[in-house]
Amino acid sequence: MLVVMKPHATVDEVQAVCDRIERLGYRPHPMPGAQRTAIGITGNQGAVEQDALAEMSGVAEVIKVSKPYKLVSRDVKEEDTVIRFPGTNATIGGRNIAVIAGPCSIESRKQAFAVAEKVAKAGAQFLRGGAYKPRTSPYAFQGMGEEGLRIMAEVRERFGLRIVTEALDNESLDLVEKYADMIQIGARNMQNYSLLKRAGRSKLPVLLKRGLSATLEELLMAAEYVMSEGNYQVALCERGIRTFTDHTRNTLDLSIVPAVQRLSHLPIVVDPSHGTGKRDKVLPLARAAVAVGCDGLIVEVHPAPDQALSDGAQSLYPEQFVQLMEECSRIAEVVHRRIPRGIEMSGIEVGGIELTAHEGAAFPAAR
Amino acid sequence: MLVVMKPHATVDEVQAVCDRIERLGYRPHPMPGAQRTAIGITGNQGAVEQDALAEMSGVAEVIKVSKPYKLVSRDVKEEDTVIRFPGTNATIGGRNIAVIAGPCSIESRKQAFAVAEKVAKAGAQFLRGGAYKPRTSPYAFQGMGEEGLRIMAEVRERFGLRIVTEALDNESLDLVEKYADMIQIGARNMQNYSLLKRAGRSKLPVLLKRGLSATLEELLMAAEYVMSEGNYQVALCERGIRTFTDHTRNTLDLSIVPAVQRLSHLPIVVDPSHGTGKRDKVLPLARAAVAVGCDGLIVEVHPAPDQALSDGAQSLYPEQFVQLMEECSRIAEVVHRRIPRGIEMSGIEVGGIELTAHEGAAFPAAR
Amino acid sequence: MLVVMKPHATVDEVQAVCDRIERLGYRPHPMPGAQRTAIGITGNQGAVEQDALAEMSGVAEVIKVSKPYKLVSRDVKEEDTVIRFPGTNATIGGRNIAVIAGPCSIESRKQAFAVAEKVAKAGAQFLRGGAYKPRTSPYAFQGMGEEGLRIMAEVRERFGLRIVTEALDNESLDLVEKYADMIQIGARNMQNYSLLKRAGRSKLPVLLKRGLSATLEELLMAAEYVMSEGNYQVALCERGIRTFTDHTRNTLDLSIVPAVQRLSHLPIVVDPSHGTGKRDKVLPLARAAVAVGCDGLIVEVHPAPDQALSDGAQSLYPEQFVQLMEECSRIAEVVHRRIPRGIEMSGIEVGGIELTAHEGAAFPAAR
Amino acid sequence: MLVVMKPHATVDEVQAVCDRIERLGYRPHPMPGAQRTAIGITGNQGAVEQDALAEMSGVAEVIKVSKPYKLVSRDVKEEDTVIRFPGTNATIGGRNIAVIAGPCSIESRKQAFAVAEKVAKAGAQFLRGGAYKPRTSPYAFQGMGEEGLRIMAEVRERFGLRIVTEALDNESLDLVEKYADMIQIGARNMQNYSLLKRAGRSKLPVLLKRGLSATLEELLMAAEYVMSEGNYQVALCERGIRTFTDHTRNTLDLSIVPAVQRLSHLPIVVDPSHGTGKRDKVLPLARAAVAVGCDGLIVEVHPAPDQALSDGAQSLYPEQFVQLMEECSRIAEVVHRRIPRGIEMSGIEVGGIELTAHEGAAFPAAR
Repeated sequence: MLVVMKPHATVDEVQAVCDRIERLGYRPHPMPGAQRTAIGITGNQGAVEQDALAEMSGVAEVIKVSKPYKLVSRDVKEEDTVIRFPGTNATIGGRNIAVIAGPCSIESRKQAFAVAEKVAKAGAQFLRGGAYKPRTSPYAFQGMGEEGLRIMAEVRERFGLRIVTEALDNESLDLVEKYADMIQIGARNMQNYSLLKRAGRSKLPVLLKRGLSATLEELLMAAEYVMSEGNYQVALCERGIRTFTDHTRNTLDLSIVPAVQRLSHLPIVVDPSHGTGKRDKVLPLARAAVAVGCDGLIVEVHPAPDQALSDGAQSLYPEQFVQLMEECSRIAEVVHRRIPRGIEMSGIEVGGIELTAHEGAAFPAAR
Repeated sequence: MLVVMKPHATVDEVQAVCDRIERLGYRPHPMPGAQRTAIGITGNQGAVEQDALAEMSGVAEVIKVSKPYKLVSRDVKEEDTVIRFPGTNATIGGRNIAVIAGPCSIESRKQAFAVAEKVAKAGAQFLRGGAYKPRTSPYAFQGMGEEGLRIMAEVRERFGLRIVTEALDNESLDLVEKYADMIQIGARNMQNYSLLKRAGRSKLPVLLKRGLSATLEELLMAAEYVMSEGNYQVALCERGIRTFTDHTRNTLDLSIVPAVQRLSHLPIVVDPSHGTGKRDKVLPLARAAVAVGCDGLIVEVHPAPDQALSDGAQSLYPEQFVQLMEECSRIAEVVHRRIPRGIEMSGIEVGGIELTAHEGAAFPAAR
Repeated sequence: MLVVMKPHATVDEVQAVCDRIERLGYRPHPMPGAQRTAIGITGNQGAVEQDALAEMSGVAEVIKVSKPYKLVSRDVKEEDTVIRFPGTNATIGGRNIAVIAGPCSIESRKQAFAVAEKVAKAGAQFLRGGAYKPRTSPYAFQGMGEEGLRIMAEVRERFGLRIVTEALDNESLDLVEKYADMIQIGARNMQNYSLLKRAGRSKLPVLLKRGLSATLEELLMAAEYVMSEGNYQVALCERGIRTFTDHTRNTLDLSIVPAVQRLSHLPIVVDPSHGTGKRDKVLPLARAAVAVGCDGLIVEVHPAPDQALSDGAQSLYPEQFVQLMEECSRIAEVVHRRIPRGIEMSGIEVGGIELTAHEGAAFPAAR
Repeated sequence: MLVVMKPHATVDEVQAVCDRIERLGYRPHPMPGAQRTAIGITGNQGAVEQDALAEMSGVAEVIKVSKPYKLVSRDVKEEDTVIRFPGTNATIGGRNIAVIAGPCSIESRKQAFAVAEKVAKAGAQFLRGGAYKPRTSPYAFQGMGEEGLRIMAEVRERFGLRIVTEALDNESLDLVEKYADMIQIGARNMQNYSLLKRAGRSKLPVLLKRGLSATLEELLMAAEYVMSEGNYQVALCERGIRTFTDHTRNTLDLSIVPAVQRLSHLPIVVDPSHGTGKRDKVLPLARAAVAVGCDGLIVEVHPAPDQALSDGAQSLYPEQFVQLMEECSRIAEVVHRRIPRGIEMSGIEVGGIELTAHEGAAFPAAR
């Protein structure tokens, strides 16, 4: 159920409808838009008192939502969701294409700073890096844990980059919240509903990766889990699906980008690194992702891929990442998008310029 | 790395090797077999002091294990693992084929008792039933929670059936441990490594369902996660994979049964209910699962499938389950297996006989 | 469109309806059943003169068929189709389960006779063997061609076995018709419509293998192509589909057996050899196929699999085939089916008995 | 086996080596390159007289080819294959990106001319259009046959467009050769080896579409079938694979483009129309195909998609095709490629200009 408010409905009218919904025993989700506010209603198993709501002041109409997803739907919110990172010009969603780059795993302070400097100079606004790694083998490197998070927080201080990192469970999510700027939910956990609900109670935005065999609807429903708990800052991520093919590790399904954008207001990011699993395919598929209209890229970059503790075969050399930024920026223009180069904080631009330790130290963790 | 003890090595010799492994900073996993004990070593990133171990008293040889999975492998333990349920004749693994039956979700005390009586009379030894349901939609029925667990514990008191139920996260696993006999890890959580590790620290056996797009190796590695924490009582479960087909909800991959049995000592159970998603396919595929050589069946049965709160379309009517038990029992004989009919506790047989409330009350929860 | 005749409609009444359909510019397909004859109509793009047909003598009703397949449907013919092989007791469809066995390719007269003797003694009624091989590489052995067909015709003379062999194109189909008893259309050609139409104009029955990525509906539509040309003797064959799994070459989709039997009157055969690609999986999956209710098995057997020119890794040793026949026969009983052992011609039983060259010579090619 | 000639080997030396290979009973395939000629050898089951060839005049070295494909491999021919269309500037392969556009089926002379005029003006150099349609149902429109081919030949006369059309079997291939400029082998026939060999004996170039579940190696091996018969003018085509997804009809696997280009010298074309099956996905995926580095696009365009006899849902409106040409041209520049606009014949440019019937008539069928 969805309550659409009139264009000039007042804040008080919206609040009154929300209160009424709560008194009925349901949960209101107000979604302000450019033209009007819509209020999603969740928690109702059957029919709510539609008529009672329809007659309230400021209400334009009450609509039944037939799709299984509600809050992720464009029916509820027509405008694209733009996730903002306070104190910076970084966004995910909208006209700008966000670039998230960094190593698969944080392996050491030295490695993290080396790659962060490279990707910051090349213009990325976000650093990716795993502190908690979901590995197929229990005997493989499982990540540095909180120490890895601390290193990434230092990277932010130094280079201004916003930090995107994966949480595996409630415990690691508590820590990710403490140190990072965006919580990544990995493909293996896309239907870990307990974790999704926990992320839905976080103040940080969520990057939700598509499961290896998830349909579009299942991906949207997973986002709905997060949103149903009150966190509306969700970006989806296509990272390849499992098919019969063997020339790449996964099959990057770029068609999901326009499919998501048609149904949902949430931004969709593409991961050509996991999507192909092969370094020489990352650049062409990154270009293709921008051409298809994605809202962001997440790319693995490592200063010495051959020595990486995980995913070395799909990590770019820093100079390859520079080329990626250049080619993708030019393609972005063709599709009337833009890749911002470098992060700006308090009017100071970072990235694309020569940074020294001194300069970097000037950037506080604006959170 | 694997230490194979001599056939007549003493308990003390085994213990001495384990102590030595621990002093080296690794974890020993002694696996007693009919002929000899093998000791798996985990936690070592590289080479352990192979020579030092090889020369210890009672050691036959020290073998490098090249496969990514160790403890699940037949290299480490040649004999089939048989999971036993104390105080009963119920087992999973070995010559007997275990039958786990019951509703998708526990919906009420009445529903649970109705179906439990039916499946107990038909000869099942285990009751399945969800108290915590992983649902694609956050707005769908999520299970009765602890109340559902309590009902199943009552069912055990009444009918003797051992209880198999799913845990979704650490919190629900704590409660499942309190009330049930076996922890189910669902397909969506097969690579929820945090949950696998928690299950690996449980005293209860684990039923680990194959993920929708998991390879055989990934399934074995997920079991390895559980075992690497010290819980060696793991049964695997094939429940259908996601393919392009549309005549069933999933494609039941029966070929994985002999494939698992070749590589691993763990039992493998087949779920023809989720594996097909259609009631009229459950019986034929259950027969096929027994014919292919499975170690158990897990089947959804509901007293009134059309009114089920979840998975009604794939739940058998109780009388269909009776037919399933009869046909599968006859096929079991052809493959030199046996489906035990009814659970025995302290020499009292349950199932296959007319039970009254009074009689049922005689069975304590033997745990 | 489908004309259902009254139970006691005369041959003349049926003929009159067919004549009328032809005069309307369409094609009648009379399908006699145990209770009544139905007449399928193909070639009509839109509405035929339904009323005119409904009023004809002997007509019970005229039904619109909404499914895309017509002649394969149980709506048109309720009774199972039983394909008969004149002069023998061999059948495909109905209560008996047909067993088709032999090498992947006919490699020499000696090899063909060696395997034929083994499979005949074990009780198979049909010999499979490729004379024209669809090989992924143009440089691989492409089959013996007509010489291979001649050898199989000799095998029939000698052992009575009915011959099933693949045609790749119109030219090879002409020759297969000349020498064999049943035309196999391979998985790669399931949607080679030109070949399907040619097979539809043959007098021989057709074994139509499911394509690697064919849905149930596409398989039925391929059979419809054959039947629409007037050849109603079609058996379908499940031989594994392509999925992401890697523990078998293909994934044998046994659930399609009951799915086909629900929608269509055509028999469905299972090929556990191609369906798994691994010798040690063939026997368990053959048992499962019988347990699920298949109408036949097609199995690769080779006297020396390691020396086979094609598909050696999935060919059974002759003694394994003997075991397969025994185990499958016992499972067949459980599902109220029967595997006939040996072919009978003019009252002389072949197979299961010691054959000499002299005895074998007594069997003419009954066609 | 591969004979690499010295850079300055003479024509006579190459001929002498070819003659020797033929006398040895094999087939030579000379492949001239910019630097040197290589001669592929097919037909040899085992070792050829390597030493004898190595010592011949002009031979640099003799190399064993370990991959299953030979003639398609970059090992045999390092330079990209460029397919030329005599009398025109149209090419497939090399720096230019070929655009093939037109209706799914030729439905009438009027429809064909309407769409041809539109796509010619928009700058396409090739017209696609089916005269023989492989349809899932035998009762669906099967194409206009030879009449459709004649119409397309008229279109060529009028607009200069080169004609690409599908052959289903030897009979239709004979006619396609008579009227068209390029033979399309459809996805369903990718492993119809009889048809591939026939195409290999044609003088016309071949557009070979990837099968729905074909691996990269199987696609290359299918091309090898064509080339092994002596026709080296083959373009591959990615048109989507079958996966579990349901938001598009197929999953367009763009990663195969760089994968093909790494292994093979053959051009690879992308079909976003079949690859998505949805009109609103065609433009974004066409852009992505160019961005990923494809050598051509094949796109369905229809003057009135809603009335199309086949594939209407995925056909672009003519104005959408104009937009596609513009956006793709700009992306082509970023990847250092170029989409030629309009075909040139004898110095007369067609397309991108206003055409009248009179002007069009000036273009003879240059073949």
